[in-house]
Amino acid sequence: MSFLVKPVLHTYFRSSCTWRVRIALALKGIEYDQAPVNLIKDGGQQLSSKFTDINPMQQVPSLEIDGITLSQSLAIIQYLDETRPKPRLLPEDAKKRAYVRMISDLIASGIQPLQNLMVLQKLGDGERLGWAQSYITKGFHALEKILDCTAGQYCVEDEVSMADLCLVPQVYNAERFKVDLTPFPTITRINQALMELEAFKVSHPSRQPDTPPDLRA
Amino acid sequence: MSFLVKPVLHTYFRSSCTWRVRIALALKGIEYDQAPVNLIKDGGQQLSSKFTDINPMQQVPSLEIDGITLSQSLAIIQYLDETRPKPRLLPEDAKKRAYVRMISDLIASGIQPLQNLMVLQKLGDGERLGWAQSYITKGFHALEKILDCTAGQYCVEDEVSMADLCLVPQVYNAERFKVDLTPFPTITRINQALMELEAFKVSHPSRQPDTPPDLRA
Repeated sequence: MSFLVKPVLHTYFRSSCTWRVRIALALKGIEYDQAPVNLIKDGGQQLSSKFTDINPMQQVPSLEIDGITLSQSLAIIQYLDETRPKPRLLPEDAKKRAYVRMISDLIASGIQPLQNLMVLQKLGDGERLGWAQSYITKGFHALEKILDCTAGQYCVEDEVSMADLCLVPQVYNAERFKVDLTPFPTITRINQALMELEAFKVSHPSRQPDTPPDLRA
Repeated sequence: MSFLVKPVLHTYFRSSCTWRVRIALALKGIEYDQAPVNLIKDGGQQLSSKFTDINPMQQVPSLEIDGITLSQSLAIIQYLDETRPKPRLLPEDAKKRAYVRMISDLIASGIQPLQNLMVLQKLGDGERLGWAQSYITKGFHALEKILDCTAGQYCVEDEVSMADLCLVPQVYNAERFKVDLTPFPTITRINQALMELEAFKVSHPSRQPDTPPDLRA
């Protein structure tokens, strides 16, 4: 019965973790409503007691779906994949699935947390850019080496997977932080191939309901 | 055929991410060899070119198993669970599995990366303890609230799951960083219940082959 209620995504246009989930929803053709949470306005709307009840970590994304509220992008994506399996975002083969999770976690635990807004706000103005660049660059060196073994057209062979949903938003962040992408030809190639796909385009930060007019595509 | 070769765990006794995997291996009764990587000695043995070939992220754990080499603790644990399913570390029900992953990711992406050695080494001597304490405390406040909804005897109801494998090493880190655990009675209770189990004891940092003599239990 709860399948009849439209899921609600608590989202911020520029949150890379939320973008991952928006891609999954788009690929699977799941209709949903957006509840924007502005991470900058009012000192950060994610800190409100109303939103803290939705996600005690005071972060986006959270997804209300099937009568439950889930947070953490990879947990959400895997729940979607297990309950709405087409098209699948984790390969059938256990080893390939492990590669997809390894790449996803490398980004979701190894890069993104170290360059997110909450951490950068703790640093001095002069430190932020260098800090973000150093963690993204270190992570991308590792990722490039791994992708050279696993990639086909996309991160793991030729099917779009959860790893790709993590890659594209992280490359977007790298560009925002002016990371030199020249040393990463495989990452760059895969990112370009993915950005040709409609699900990656419609979910882009420049095309969301809460995107400010001056940042719209 | 590769099932006949003993897995090799690249490990450091005090790495909380590696401890997660050691618990999984112990719970499932998988025999393995340890290849210690000292994160302090020689300026960090994880930085050697030999180890960088094993894990380009220069982190432990990595596990050589079934002819492949995997990194990222949650990817490893889920591979083990899918290929050696008994006892299962992710529940059969999709919603409960989502809760397990949500709690695991909250720790693995939301807390641990912000208090790991690599990050703390970037901070000044006077900043480290406060930085680590603040992220662990913030994460534990969220976790406590979530566990109040999901927990039974353990993190998600009454079966040991991947979430528990993340919880115990994170509480160990909290204690190392002298975090006040008084506000977290549920976390404390579950941690104590888990530490009664043999798999959590034998995998403890104080009982590893590479544990220095003065830190042995």
